[in-house]
Amino acid sequence: MDGVILTPLKQIHSPKGDIFHAMKKSDEGFDGFGEAYFSTVNKDDIKGWKKHTRMTLNLVVPIGTIEFVIYNEITKEFFNIELSQDNYQRITVKPDLWVAFRGIGEYNMLLNLASIEHDPSEAANVEFLGIKYDWN
Amino acid sequence: MDGVILTPLKQIHSPKGDIFHAMKKSDEGFDGFGEAYFSTVNKDDIKGWKKHTRMTLNLVVPIGTIEFVIYNEITKEFFNIELSQDNYQRITVKPDLWVAFRGIGEYNMLLNLASIEHDPSEAANVEFLGIKYDWN
Repeated sequence: MDGVILTPLKQIHSPKGDIFHAMKKSDEGFDGFGEAYFSTVNKDDIKGWKKHTRMTLNLVVPIGTIEFVIYNEITKEFFNIELSQDNYQRITVKPDLWVAFRGIGEYNMLLNLASIEHDPSEAANVEFLGIKYDWN
Repeated sequence: MDGVILTPLKQIHSPKGDIFHAMKKSDEGFDGFGEAYFSTVNKDDIKGWKKHTRMTLNLVVPIGTIEFVIYNEITKEFFNIELSQDNYQRITVKPDLWVAFRGIGEYNMLLNLASIEHDPSEAANVEFLGIKYDWN
């Protein structure tokens, strides 16, 4: 989907513990660093929909499994993917796309490396019913 | 300790899941964004010692509990702290300090928001015996 970039990320395993890459500033999809935060989502709960008009999101799932759905309100197109340690990729979401995500595992956590700091004036929220997507 | 900054971070709880802050570019301790990666450490295992000559580390523990020890080789001073969701702070470590960390919980994960991309030429490793610290 236009405005969405999937980037497989390296995992380096060692006996004491692992390294999971998230993002380098030279990576495709990096639009500057504004803020990093974690968001957890309970099993079967859905967070969203939310749209940013200026922020580029870079989402990584280090814990659990999260299903992401991206919606383009112009083309009416949906894109969906499940990310986890087993399908360890970064999803970059450019501005003006709607995003929602659902917890699949028992404990699910994403990291967002956002291109700008949180600013309520550039974000919009809609109720579930505003965008018709069949989650099943 | 000089060169170490502890910053309590916000946790925002909601019924569907939580938000855990990690870093904003306007925060104290932010020296630019180079790379973000996760490192896991098994219970009772120790990773380190490692020293960076140019990288500032910004370490957050979203999963499990990790004990960090920072060592200043000039003053021979040690600093230690355990971080977790229950003691949710960011530790900023400026260059030229030695860092080691030990897994305390069953599954332990840190996020490093590093000021530069990984570059082996600016990092040094020493065996455990090189720095005498009593972990117990």
